[in-house]
Amino acid sequence: MTSYGIVAFDLFEELDLAGPYEVFAASRDIRDAGDTVVVISDRLEPITGAKGLRVLPDATLAETANVDVVLIPGGDGTDRDAENPAFLDWVRRAATTATWLTSVCTGALILHAAGVADGRPLATHWSFEDRLEASGAIVERKARFVRSGSVVSSQGVSAGIDMALWIVGQLHGVSHAREVQRYIQYDPAPPYTADV
Amino acid sequence: MTSYGIVAFDLFEELDLAGPYEVFAASRDIRDAGDTVVVISDRLEPITGAKGLRVLPDATLAETANVDVVLIPGGDGTDRDAENPAFLDWVRRAATTATWLTSVCTGALILHAAGVADGRPLATHWSFEDRLEASGAIVERKARFVRSGSVVSSQGVSAGIDMALWIVGQLHGVSHAREVQRYIQYDPAPPYTADV
Repeated sequence: MTSYGIVAFDLFEELDLAGPYEVFAASRDIRDAGDTVVVISDRLEPITGAKGLRVLPDATLAETANVDVVLIPGGDGTDRDAENPAFLDWVRRAATTATWLTSVCTGALILHAAGVADGRPLATHWSFEDRLEASGAIVERKARFVRSGSVVSSQGVSAGIDMALWIVGQLHGVSHAREVQRYIQYDPAPPYTADV
Repeated sequence: MTSYGIVAFDLFEELDLAGPYEVFAASRDIRDAGDTVVVISDRLEPITGAKGLRVLPDATLAETANVDVVLIPGGDGTDRDAENPAFLDWVRRAATTATWLTSVCTGALILHAAGVADGRPLATHWSFEDRLEASGAIVERKARFVRSGSVVSSQGVSAGIDMALWIVGQLHGVSHAREVQRYIQYDPAPPYTADV
């Protein structure tokens, strides 16, 4: 059984959260082995994303420090959360027990602020790479996502989908990950490529 | 000003809704021209998706029959909604005023049930193509999304992202759509390709 905890905080970026949520929950349903996917937050009230979508958390941070996979999205809220001692304490505790500690987009700023990625490369949204590097982090600028030990971080927003597929493949095998990919029909075809 | 209405119903598929939501809302914020993106439903209570994510709608169907872009996601709830006369009436009314009437995944079953796609090709999730065809629809099996007149429908789940980018490009130009694509850092790289 694999437990996934996806953190929601004020001004989280919507697709940072929802892309991995879809991948992890599709994996859960396909496996049918008792996996759990919960949205966790500091409170059980509606949390409003950076673009305005409101989601309801399933559990509090206090209840869920021991999930196998932690996912921290990015979004305009990461600045505030990177200075929230209680949240950073939670990330440090979760880091000691999680199999995979992951971030999407500017969620990497939180991993860095919590000190759980010291000496490890981090990926983030292209527009935050300079700032993350200036704050003392090692920044991976080429890869869609980067893994170092148990820490995996992805580039911006949509990159969380690719990272989440990689995670379920590491946990449950490549052929399972491909089944999830097929379920979400992930044969991406961006419509306006540079040479159109 | 462009208004987007994204329908939520019980057991909507999470990424069907959240992918286009992110694209439309990123377009809104980049343009900064008063565009609106609302989640609409038959009631203002939390709506639970097919995978368990709970979202709060912003407005009721009754309040929002005149949006420029209607998006109907798929999910396990489409069976029930394809037999809900009030919802199908709403879809028919919205079809008369919307610039674009769109669906993701099994949302195509609702367009077909409402009779707003008669004679037009529809795309849907690969696992529902036979069923949609058996119900009398014209099914497009090759394209990631298909447009016919004002009706645009996409294949499963993640395909809504590609379709939504195409829509904002049609509405506001290709270079704007590329800016949205760059904002969501949509350079997809599925990790386990078939020949790995």
